Amino acid sequence: MPSPFRFSQLGRAMRPSPIRELFKLTQRPGMISFAGGLPDPAIFPIQQFASCAEALTQRGPVALQYGATEGYGELVAVLQELMRGPLGRSPSAAEILVASGSQQVMDLIGRVLLDPGDTVVVEAPTYPGALHTFRNCGARFATVPCDAQGMQVDLLPDILDQCCRTTGRPPKLIYTITNFSNPSGACLAAARRRQLAEVAERWGIPVFEDDPYGELRHRGEPLPTIFSLTPWPGVLYASSFSKTLAPGVRVAWAVADPALVRAMVIAKQGVDLCTSMVSQVLVAEYCRRGHLATHLEAIRAHYAGKSAAMAAALSRHLPAGAAEWDEPQGGFFFWLRLASTDSRSLFHRAVERGVAFLPGDAFFPDPAETVVGSSDGSRFARLCFTFASSHEIEEGCRRLAASLAET
Amino acid sequence: MPSPFRFSQLGRAMRPSPIRELFKLTQRPGMISFAGGLPDPAIFPIQQFASCAEALTQRGPVALQYGATEGYGELVAVLQELMRGPLGRSPSAAEILVASGSQQVMDLIGRVLLDPGDTVVVEAPTYPGALHTFRNCGARFATVPCDAQGMQVDLLPDILDQCCRTTGRPPKLIYTITNFSNPSGACLAAARRRQLAEVAERWGIPVFEDDPYGELRHRGEPLPTIFSLTPWPGVLYASSFSKTLAPGVRVAWAVADPALVRAMVIAKQGVDLCTSMVSQVLVAEYCRRGHLATHLEAIRAHYAGKSAAMAAALSRHLPAGAAEWDEPQGGFFFWLRLASTDSRSLFHRAVERGVAFLPGDAFFPDPAETVVGSSDGSRFARLCFTFASSHEIEEGCRRLAASLAET
Repeated sequence: MPSPFRFSQLGRAMRPSPIRELFKLTQRPGMISFAGGLPDPAIFPIQQFASCAEALTQRGPVALQYGATEGYGELVAVLQELMRGPLGRSPSAAEILVASGSQQVMDLIGRVLLDPGDTVVVEAPTYPGALHTFRNCGARFATVPCDAQGMQVDLLPDILDQCCRTTGRPPKLIYTITNFSNPSGACLAAARRRQLAEVAERWGIPVFEDDPYGELRHRGEPLPTIFSLTPWPGVLYASSFSKTLAPGVRVAWAVADPALVRAMVIAKQGVDLCTSMVSQVLVAEYCRRGHLATHLEAIRAHYAGKSAAMAAALSRHLPAGAAEWDEPQGGFFFWLRLASTDSRSLFHRAVERGVAFLPGDAFFPDPAETVVGSSDGSRFARLCFTFASSHEIEEGCRRLAASLAET
Repeated sequence: MPSPFRFSQLGRAMRPSPIRELFKLTQRPGMISFAGGLPDPAIFPIQQFASCAEALTQRGPVALQYGATEGYGELVAVLQELMRGPLGRSPSAAEILVASGSQQVMDLIGRVLLDPGDTVVVEAPTYPGALHTFRNCGARFATVPCDAQGMQVDLLPDILDQCCRTTGRPPKLIYTITNFSNPSGACLAAARRRQLAEVAERWGIPVFEDDPYGELRHRGEPLPTIFSLTPWPGVLYASSFSKTLAPGVRVAWAVADPALVRAMVIAKQGVDLCTSMVSQVLVAEYCRRGHLATHLEAIRAHYAGKSAAMAAALSRHLPAGAAEWDEPQGGFFFWLRLASTDSRSLFHRAVERGVAFLPGDAFFPDPAETVVGSSDGSRFARLCFTFASSHEIEEGCRRLAASLAET
């Protein structure tokens, strides 16, 4: 029987996330996983969160009904207060959109800004989920190399020029993960944040400042958000409860110019009407009770310990000269620069030995979809330090070292 | 300052839902609303649902973590059992996708099947949210007229022919709300369901059988789903917990051929990663405890009473000959055929008198986006009977009658 489905161009072009294919290989008993970018379930505030279900009773008719596409009013009020620090002012309700995870913010901005063939500027390396979403909008990519201070913004003007020469028009969006980048763990230096805002404003290219890890700093001083550094309305700031409270709530938010928020709201009406009201009511109650602030203290300390454990285990076990890394000051990830081995083949050897990580190539766009920049992820490996237990971190690094020594 | 945003073609073309614009006019103290298609919050199973939060404690590490894009395993198992009746067999897990509301099912199928300029066959009248979502995918529409038995399927082959002649190719999708249609309240007759399956298979055009109201039958015998009437894999069946349990959970599902489910899963990865795990765990627990079946009994009886109250109030108050209607056997809506008045002007007069409904034109595509069919909604009015209290139904119909008498 012939298939009844004639898929759209998009439907035919979509590929399963290569990362998810790798994850399948890591689903084995005894596997120690540094692969997924998952919070530690051992520190989920399960009792505190579940006890907020009292709010489902108290606000039942609201929690169980359809809600405003823009977001649940009490949660928006919580976010206005929460954003005062990072953004330097409390945003108006018209500047806020509650979304079903940061991934939805990417999708909505992709829909309202990107036509097929448009270019998005991304860091190299960057979050593969962003590549997946923007790719689904038909985007191509221009990549900006990164170092320990994040995106090398001094290279940006030349890259924008090149993009204009290659594609005939400037990019439509600049996507950056400013704090503890996924995957590199790097923070964009303060001077570079200013410089990025200036370049973006001069070119008139909106900036998507993705900041899910900003609150997870366990060392050093917080850096100002790009949003707070410019009065220019072209910066969209997004964050999420996924890495602080829990990913399972699927609640994130964007703060942006009201015109952009309005367009995203109209797109969201056709996408899911509104974010789970049950989730929003629970999250708002959790924050209203003051649990988020105390929980943040706890997870910063918890992850600081895990980060130190991974740094120590890597130093202790990895063969001298086999890899270099900078211990991150927060976030979820170590980003290893391998001296002389291909990270894909290392991945397969490591999985054989019972430890998983993600090879670097997953974090760069394909050459075929890259209009400016060339990148080679084969010498990098991303290790998530938050999910595994301290004992597993020690043993996993030992196994990784053995896999490295095999070459 | 010039706007930093150069919106995409889609972003520029998107319009706020006209219904939402109307809703704004109905937000006044004392307004009796038959406008929104909302369940009655007075019958939300608030205590039972909130008590399921015990599952958040018991399954905390799962409920708070990222979940599979396809859906939470325990909820998928619940759905496999729940679907045995309506679909005539228990679907495999590979045939099921849990979505963040039915609206997301529409969006995902639109993305993987529709290219800009493709045609979707819809009933006239149909659900405006479907028009909004498919429009956002660049779709145009062919409309099939409806009568008291739903879509006039005998007209469908001619309409498909016309579509081929007009656009050069057949439509990509047939969208139908088979039970207690929003807005018409009609059920597609059994013989027409068979006929629709045959025509769709012959033409090779997938059918989207949208069935959020099927379980809300308070009179008459259930009709077989289109899905159950054909072994052809081109029928996607979708339903939702929004109208049975509560819209605020934002949990719906689709059952379809595994190839289509797979494509939708890949699209969903880039859209929201997964549906709220918190919502899914609560809904699964609610069903697992057997609450859904008993709640369905209760709301069927509750809504039967409200439907009868509206039928009686309309008969009692409306001027003789001013409107005709068929009392629905379930669902949420009365669909009035007005004798001699324009429903937009009636809407404004009614709102002045403190009662709101939705004028018929909201339920038809615009002529500019319609490639086959012409439709005029100006003589129709949709009245939702589920949201208002019985006292409000009586008083609202009295006010509506006074507005009608004004002409």
